[in-house]
Amino acid sequence: MTAIVPDGFLALAEDAQDLLFREARTANTFTSEPVTDERLRAIYELVKWAPTAMNAQPLGIVAVRGADAKERLLPLMAEGNRAKTAAAPVALIAAADEDFHEHMPNIWHRPEARENLAASPGRAGMAKFNATIQLGYLILGVRAAGLAAGPMAGFDAEAVEKEFLAGGNLRAIAIVNVGRPGPDAWFDRNRRLEYEQVVSVV
Amino acid sequence: MTAIVPDGFLALAEDAQDLLFREARTANTFTSEPVTDERLRAIYELVKWAPTAMNAQPLGIVAVRGADAKERLLPLMAEGNRAKTAAAPVALIAAADEDFHEHMPNIWHRPEARENLAASPGRAGMAKFNATIQLGYLILGVRAAGLAAGPMAGFDAEAVEKEFLAGGNLRAIAIVNVGRPGPDAWFDRNRRLEYEQVVSVV
Repeated sequence: MTAIVPDGFLALAEDAQDLLFREARTANTFTSEPVTDERLRAIYELVKWAPTAMNAQPLGIVAVRGADAKERLLPLMAEGNRAKTAAAPVALIAAADEDFHEHMPNIWHRPEARENLAASPGRAGMAKFNATIQLGYLILGVRAAGLAAGPMAGFDAEAVEKEFLAGGNLRAIAIVNVGRPGPDAWFDRNRRLEYEQVVSVV
Repeated sequence: MTAIVPDGFLALAEDAQDLLFREARTANTFTSEPVTDERLRAIYELVKWAPTAMNAQPLGIVAVRGADAKERLLPLMAEGNRAKTAAAPVALIAAADEDFHEHMPNIWHRPEARENLAASPGRAGMAKFNATIQLGYLILGVRAAGLAAGPMAGFDAEAVEKEFLAGGNLRAIAIVNVGRPGPDAWFDRNRRLEYEQVVSVV
């Protein structure tokens, strides 16, 4: 694909730009090639380094891969998403852990953050905001593994939480199908906004 | 830096892994090297390709670079963030455009989405959610340009909107300092959660 970023303004190599941004696409079909535990771990071990506020890392992931688990997930998806998720070797339930503050003494240099956040009415919002930033990292991390991601917001979040996230304080924010793209995996690419429509400099 | 991702599970080259995830750090100090319009454009032209729901692309950016504009921004920052933003060659106000649906006929293959979204009570939430995913892409895009990002949530959002985002329907979600890291630009790295604490497979 022709690069449209002018030479010299990015440090990232062009093939990496293609892999993560230009050639990767949201996939709607998948091959049957499994996504192994090792590959899921490699993705996590890469994206975990990207930043969150107070290093809070509220993103939790349930990787739905087994046939039984998939059977439990499919009816909770919006109808238009069921075939895609049925075909995906794994579907990642991305969730915001509202109890992320319990980890603070191990992950932040000010251990009193745990108590402060325990009492903070903004904690749930902070969990969702930072887990959503991490969802952006995760989508690019899936692509970094040479796989296609298919992020979806169309599912019954409450039912997914009850079925897959019980016993914690996790809110489902997205489900991301992951695998190798199958036949006719995507539509034509839709247009992006122009730089001038998005960015202004003052 | 030693790679801890085992060989063969990622397609992204190791130096690109380092650039985006392992060696890049949240910077608190910056050199005076300017961030040019060309570089801002190159970052946008890269990250614009990453996916959003319905290709909605609700992220809007005001790049605060001029001395006058910086003077207007600093008092709206939390006190602990002022020195960092004063030192940064540019500070990006990242915002969620709640009127993103107006672009739908140009960016989505179903033009009726504009009318449907115009009437949808979920539109503001969709704007914030997708702009926040895009914030994750943007942070990695800044790193792809060989620059350091310093994302911050500590500022008076309402005042920033009044001062910099008037005339639109934009909600400020973060401010990201951008530039070359200066002396003592970061603290020691805080610990990340273990794979087993974050990911479970069912």
